[in-house]
Amino acid sequence: MTHSQVHAIDWQQQHLRLLDQRYLPHQQQYIDCFNAADVADAIRAMVVRGAPAIGIAAAYGYALEALHGGDLQHAYQRLAESRPTAVNLFWALERMAALSHAGPEQLVAEARAIHQQDIADNLAMAQFGASLLGEHSRVYTHCNTGALATGGHGTALGVIRSAWADGKISQVYAGETRPWLQGARLTCWELMQDNIDVQLVCDGAAAHLLQQQRKRNQAIDWIIVGADRIAANGDVANKIGTYSLAVLARHHGAKVMVVAPSSSFDLTLASGDDIVIEQRPASEVTELQGQAIAPAGCQALNPSFDITPAELITAIVCEQGVIPAPSRDTLAALLTR
Amino acid sequence: MTHSQVHAIDWQQQHLRLLDQRYLPHQQQYIDCFNAADVADAIRAMVVRGAPAIGIAAAYGYALEALHGGDLQHAYQRLAESRPTAVNLFWALERMAALSHAGPEQLVAEARAIHQQDIADNLAMAQFGASLLGEHSRVYTHCNTGALATGGHGTALGVIRSAWADGKISQVYAGETRPWLQGARLTCWELMQDNIDVQLVCDGAAAHLLQQQRKRNQAIDWIIVGADRIAANGDVANKIGTYSLAVLARHHGAKVMVVAPSSSFDLTLASGDDIVIEQRPASEVTELQGQAIAPAGCQALNPSFDITPAELITAIVCEQGVIPAPSRDTLAALLTR
Repeated sequence: MTHSQVHAIDWQQQHLRLLDQRYLPHQQQYIDCFNAADVADAIRAMVVRGAPAIGIAAAYGYALEALHGGDLQHAYQRLAESRPTAVNLFWALERMAALSHAGPEQLVAEARAIHQQDIADNLAMAQFGASLLGEHSRVYTHCNTGALATGGHGTALGVIRSAWADGKISQVYAGETRPWLQGARLTCWELMQDNIDVQLVCDGAAAHLLQQQRKRNQAIDWIIVGADRIAANGDVANKIGTYSLAVLARHHGAKVMVVAPSSSFDLTLASGDDIVIEQRPASEVTELQGQAIAPAGCQALNPSFDITPAELITAIVCEQGVIPAPSRDTLAALLTR
Repeated sequence: MTHSQVHAIDWQQQHLRLLDQRYLPHQQQYIDCFNAADVADAIRAMVVRGAPAIGIAAAYGYALEALHGGDLQHAYQRLAESRPTAVNLFWALERMAALSHAGPEQLVAEARAIHQQDIADNLAMAQFGASLLGEHSRVYTHCNTGALATGGHGTALGVIRSAWADGKISQVYAGETRPWLQGARLTCWELMQDNIDVQLVCDGAAAHLLQQQRKRNQAIDWIIVGADRIAANGDVANKIGTYSLAVLARHHGAKVMVVAPSSSFDLTLASGDDIVIEQRPASEVTELQGQAIAPAGCQALNPSFDITPAELITAIVCEQGVIPAPSRDTLAALLTR
């Protein structure tokens, strides 16, 4: 039942303190938020990222607005617009808005409950996910789905953390996850904090690694990733590069595990085709840490997410259990039981 | 018969001037080489890169050593060790060494002949490759295989440049090609110099792009890449990330064209399994332009090349013609006719 010592989202009585993940792994700087606009700006600027963490931060943002007597409808709107793909954001805001007529203290308590529930859910997911791994598993993860991306412990990285603690993992590979390098900057940092062996690779090297490790009879067993949104048929929206890994996994006989709380499910969406993909600024691709890495004026496409069809996913793990061979039927069976 | 105005390798009577590609696209700096050691250092440091360009530079390096009365056997050794995967390097050095007892002027003339032949070969390949493209083709390329990587015009990028001039291409996509970002830094720069529309994407976004463009009935028709070494059965060693694209192309019904001079063929290798993959320093993954982008002490794998099996390649194009469905038989048929 270990979870990381990292506190990315820290409620401080009358304000919210966020670890500014844009400066990791080099500096641990914090940003103090006093109202919904501060939190919305922090979400948009990726001070805080990861679908569950965004939902928790937004809930605190809504509560902050209530504490300071602000316009809650306006706060809802502003927070809802900060990252369009993250369904947890809407889930958390709906839960807060249902109490909009309660007192500020009750809204703060609700935000804290959402936060605590997320940690408990992560620990449950980690147990379910780790149970799917065999002994001496080699796993590959993408983006950051750890304590930094959630209320604590993590989703996909929570599974890896728990399975490592159980002695079931012999090697973790982390894809760097361009353009934001969450894998390099955040996942490697988190894993190194917990003394979990990790090898970083460029995203383009994943196929080679899958091929070579299989040839050496040291195959990568699982690709383990998070989700920003899961449609009713099991299609998954997650960080750009996830779909690539799922296709490569299929080609090489590796399994794909998606780990996400049930608040990531959006059963109003029939399939991934209904998910709008956030397009972020080209400058995130053409610049890095403020330095140009492409010619001035270069055009670039920067889709922030991609859609992995359910047929490429071996299992979806949420806090309620495991959905093997995800489909409309298997999803509904778990979520309505 | 256009070719780019870029002169990456410039013979200056008594020395060799190399465009220092490490500073592109921001600065056009040049390095002057006066002997084989200077050239070997420039190749190792990636001042000059691209298999054909490395071969040409090495030939000039050998000639320089002769001009200054150096030890040619030692020069050969030093140059041969500079980049182990590039077979053109050995091909060019063998051709020079065959004239080791001739005068320095004759060696310089031979190096210049190798350089001129490369440009002529590129133009021939470009014609063969462009003939495979239909009207309004959408193409995706990886790394840099243009005027910067060759004696001039380019291999895969030469095909794209010629097909664009012929009005056959509606869109070029370039993968950024981590860790060295040759796609972002060099390919986009070259294409922008020639007013060829290019959209840059992160390597992890290629799968999403293939998927989305197909859904919009604007499918990417061809992945067009170069090669560092081609085995007798048609397996191709090329920049890390190439194999990933080939697997993704197969999944999405896109075609894969490999464009390389016949000097890239190594018929002594039965298959790609016999090709040793150069492992480069982890710091190339964990740092960018001298800045750390991963935690201090982070372990990283940095294979410089990967192997694409022949079965994933639609056609190999060399200056002698097109090898469709590459195999031991189809390769031998073209190369021995």
